[in-house]
Amino acid sequence: GVAMMKFKSPPVNSLSLEFLTEFSISLEKLENNRACRGVIITSAVPKIFSSGLDITEMCGKSTEHYTEFWRAVQEMWLRLYGSNMVTVAAVNVRPPAGGCLIALSCDYRIMAENPKFSIGLNEAQLGIVAPFWFKDTFVHVVGHRIAERSLQLGSLHPAPEAHKLGLVDELVPEEKLMEKAAAVMAQWLALPDHARQLTKTMMRKAVLDRLVAHREEDIKNFVSFVSKESIQKSLRMYMEMLKKRK
Amino acid sequence: GVAMMKFKSPPVNSLSLEFLTEFSISLEKLENNRACRGVIITSAVPKIFSSGLDITEMCGKSTEHYTEFWRAVQEMWLRLYGSNMVTVAAVNVRPPAGGCLIALSCDYRIMAENPKFSIGLNEAQLGIVAPFWFKDTFVHVVGHRIAERSLQLGSLHPAPEAHKLGLVDELVPEEKLMEKAAAVMAQWLALPDHARQLTKTMMRKAVLDRLVAHREEDIKNFVSFVSKESIQKSLRMYMEMLKKRK
Amino acid sequence: GVAMMKFKSPPVNSLSLEFLTEFSISLEKLENNRACRGVIITSAVPKIFSSGLDITEMCGKSTEHYTEFWRAVQEMWLRLYGSNMVTVAAVNVRPPAGGCLIALSCDYRIMAENPKFSIGLNEAQLGIVAPFWFKDTFVHVVGHRIAERSLQLGSLHPAPEAHKLGLVDELVPEEKLMEKAAAVMAQWLALPDHARQLTKTMMRKAVLDRLVAHREEDIKNFVSFVSKESIQKSLRMYMEMLKKRK
Repeated sequence: GVAMMKFKSPPVNSLSLEFLTEFSISLEKLENNRACRGVIITSAVPKIFSSGLDITEMCGKSTEHYTEFWRAVQEMWLRLYGSNMVTVAAVNVRPPAGGCLIALSCDYRIMAENPKFSIGLNEAQLGIVAPFWFKDTFVHVVGHRIAERSLQLGSLHPAPEAHKLGLVDELVPEEKLMEKAAAVMAQWLALPDHARQLTKTMMRKAVLDRLVAHREEDIKNFVSFVSKESIQKSLRMYMEMLKKRK
Repeated sequence: GVAMMKFKSPPVNSLSLEFLTEFSISLEKLENNRACRGVIITSAVPKIFSSGLDITEMCGKSTEHYTEFWRAVQEMWLRLYGSNMVTVAAVNVRPPAGGCLIALSCDYRIMAENPKFSIGLNEAQLGIVAPFWFKDTFVHVVGHRIAERSLQLGSLHPAPEAHKLGLVDELVPEEKLMEKAAAVMAQWLALPDHARQLTKTMMRKAVLDRLVAHREEDIKNFVSFVSKESIQKSLRMYMEMLKKRK
Repeated sequence: GVAMMKFKSPPVNSLSLEFLTEFSISLEKLENNRACRGVIITSAVPKIFSSGLDITEMCGKSTEHYTEFWRAVQEMWLRLYGSNMVTVAAVNVRPPAGGCLIALSCDYRIMAENPKFSIGLNEAQLGIVAPFWFKDTFVHVVGHRIAERSLQLGSLHPAPEAHKLGLVDELVPEEKLMEKAAAVMAQWLALPDHARQLTKTMMRKAVLDRLVAHREEDIKNFVSFVSKESIQKSLRMYMEMLKKRK
């Protein structure tokens, strides 16, 4: 009754439009499959969980493209955060921004205990702003104060700090990651589904409803923000920097 | 100026309709007694604070009975959570579900430091769902993330873990429990009542008002949920299991 | 691009009407100065950050005076909590009540690591009640439970406890305070201003809007409360006590 989803979009599992669309469709299929009660989300690419939103989708494209891309990001989050299945993220490292959002939207987060690995919503470092529903998801996990500081600084927290802040629930040696994910899943699936699902809905409905109510407005905000010449320039510089690193 | 309420409904201080009604009446009397400024709540039954909601009240009874029972649970919480008195829970062990709610509704929680003793809202384990005002009370004590995980798993947290999570404020050796409760009460009563009461109201009013506004709807939800054959079956099985344990 | 504001209103930097008015005007000037991106707030009076609201402004004065005074307190908070600049409080000790509010309204709080120094919102000890926006600011920093207990008891937390509760972000030896404040400021200013400011607004807007929407009502509440003979008596007694201490 447990599915395993392994991100495999080399080199860095960027959340491209194609990737997001496939992810949402896979989630929908699992959700509609009565035999499937839980899903473990991890990466098949060594040392990378996901590098987050694909910047090439936000740079030098048309308004229509930005709209379609952002709607796909929303769709993914609405499906994952609102899933009736038990969702466990097995973070085998480095998931900034959008990748961190995926982990934050699961029911439980396990991370490889390597101080070189880090996690966070680093939008502010790119000169862009996390939308309110990234923020709501973050606040529900770590509380208002930690979210306020971390979002303003675009912090990427090393694994031990991420654990201390509550951003991940547990650290395990890298080779034990999948074993631990399976054990956690078994613990959650020991409960009757119906009560667990209603409880999860009670905890998350207000935040989900808020995006549903403001979805078109949120897309408009994103498109108008990302279309600004100053933002396009920041993103181009950031991509140049990434290329040079390689 | 301090009252002591000792639960004494052997064998396990179940929150039956009769127990809840008496509890609410006692609270009302103390509330109206100007000489009484604080109340310490504890148990006179060895090793048991309260086993929580009395399952026999929810099993094989009429719709009218379920309605009356749930209204009594609401009444108790509205009186306790909204009390103008200083309320200190001296938890001499094992208060799942409804018993935990009583502790969470007080101003301060002291627990015997015995790792065998545990506390939590374990509804999910019985296949039932804690109502929104149990959840609101829980979130206000331990924050959203801990509440989300704990409620979904129906966790009973051993005393040291409960303390670490903030579910109880202090652990003391069992024999020091009442002494400590008296000392905490003295500290809280050193403040002028009026400002303390207004401050407490400011912190709790929104949550209290939410139940007051949705009280009939909440009763209807409970009655329709508990009347389902699948839930009745779960509860019967749970009672069988409890009987066998003895 | 960083301003330094040093409170200098001997003997104890009380937040008098004059002090608050000057503080708000200074903040407004800095805010309108495009060259200024951050402000460090500290005290030039040895061993005192600020003693909080000036009680002489609340005692034996006219309704008009109370109104003017409270509006000045609101104005200061609206400017500071809503500032577009990076705001760092370097707390060189003992800031109860209103002084604590100033620190809580900044982006980051550093405190001298001296267990004799304490910080908190101690209104309840004077028999008065912190207004809802003091409470909202406090809850956003330390969470609901800690705020509920601390406000009801009017607690002044010694530096190590304040740090553990999250009331201050960091403790440093007294002589390193300004050096650390400068280092933190540099870290925050390394981010692009625009994204940081929008993120800060996203985190704080709801709380700021709430006071803006209820500003006149809040003034009316304060004036009617402080005009009561019983409150005037408490404040006179408190002032007598302070005089005797000297």
